[in-house]
Amino acid sequence: LEGPNVVLAAIRAGRQLETVFALRGDPVEEMVDDVVNVESEVLERLAPTQHPRGPVAVMAIPPSEPVVRSCLLLWSLADPGNVGTLIRTAAAFGMDVAVAGSGADPWAPKTLRAAAGGHFRTRIEIDASVASLKERGFTVVATVPRSGVGTDRLRDLANAAIAVGSEAHGLPADVIGQSDLLVTIPMPGKMESVNAAVAGAILAYELTRATPGAP
Amino acid sequence: LEGPNVVLAAIRAGRQLETVFALRGDPVEEMVDDVVNVESEVLERLAPTQHPRGPVAVMAIPPSEPVVRSCLLLWSLADPGNVGTLIRTAAAFGMDVAVAGSGADPWAPKTLRAAAGGHFRTRIEIDASVASLKERGFTVVATVPRSGVGTDRLRDLANAAIAVGSEAHGLPADVIGQSDLLVTIPMPGKMESVNAAVAGAILAYELTRATPGAP
Repeated sequence: LEGPNVVLAAIRAGRQLETVFALRGDPVEEMVDDVVNVESEVLERLAPTQHPRGPVAVMAIPPSEPVVRSCLLLWSLADPGNVGTLIRTAAAFGMDVAVAGSGADPWAPKTLRAAAGGHFRTRIEIDASVASLKERGFTVVATVPRSGVGTDRLRDLANAAIAVGSEAHGLPADVIGQSDLLVTIPMPGKMESVNAAVAGAILAYELTRATPGAP
Repeated sequence: LEGPNVVLAAIRAGRQLETVFALRGDPVEEMVDDVVNVESEVLERLAPTQHPRGPVAVMAIPPSEPVVRSCLLLWSLADPGNVGTLIRTAAAFGMDVAVAGSGADPWAPKTLRAAAGGHFRTRIEIDASVASLKERGFTVVATVPRSGVGTDRLRDLANAAIAVGSEAHGLPADVIGQSDLLVTIPMPGKMESVNAAVAGAILAYELTRATPGAP
């Protein structure tokens, strides 16, 4: 974990950190008993980025946590920036996150940075499947570039899993086939598609805005 | 310009390319008269990424093009990925783009890649100002993290410039002060904010969906 946003979000969520490294005088010293003080050269070697912001912390990757409320279902998204952005977005809209297929690691350092602490304000289910989500009562919504129903159809859904596909290929045909509803974002302009994180975020916004009182 | 999406979008838009480099047999040869055939080692040296997809083209940065329809106003966004994502989003929603402040170059190679051809399907105005946009009849909408009106207020706007601030600092106080309307995206979850590109995209979606027949 790198930087104050991510490390402080983990601490505030009560997560167990193995080691916290920080420059002397870092505010994290007020929050954690055993901070290891290091020089800035050491911090740079510890962190995955070139010019890290302290503190830097080591945490065991937590186990998969099953989703219990409407969620974004990330299917083989390759870009850790997009995965992190959608974890942050789900947390902002009071949704959980399920990850499926063979995409970027949701707990990779780049993903954690892009999520800005979102990992510690939502549930992240690993190796999700459409069948399991449907068994648990979720309405699985596939995001498709054309021929789906309008986004206003999200309005009536209480427990939705909104599936977003990979940047290059979208959702696999079998996921689309198993889904309960296909939704297309109306785009009056001249592009074929928007970025995967943008598509997921628009549907998360639409779902949580449209359901009164939820979640 | 790197990769088929960006180079082909430029060609289809009738943009003047100075030189087009491609591997022998690249489909771009059907579209441009003077393709310079190169080996893959040369393509790798020409392109800004490590494993480029051909073709690679050189184009003079076009002059600023004043916005003439509702637009996203990008204020000092530092991340070229976010700037490119919002150019792609604006193009998808039939909006223009205005750039202001001191952010990432809208014509940088990283920005072009993230926009996936969006640069050639919208107008991009450089060095925009709130005063000039207002003089030209635009309603300037500032995106603020709290205390703004709801997003449904975008519904009645015909010519809106939606201002999105930098990733770290949001919009400057003077831009907020000069704006006609402050809008806040409702976030029922526990994050303070979403990614800047996500915020701009949600408002672009809301604006273009809510205005019947536009743009």
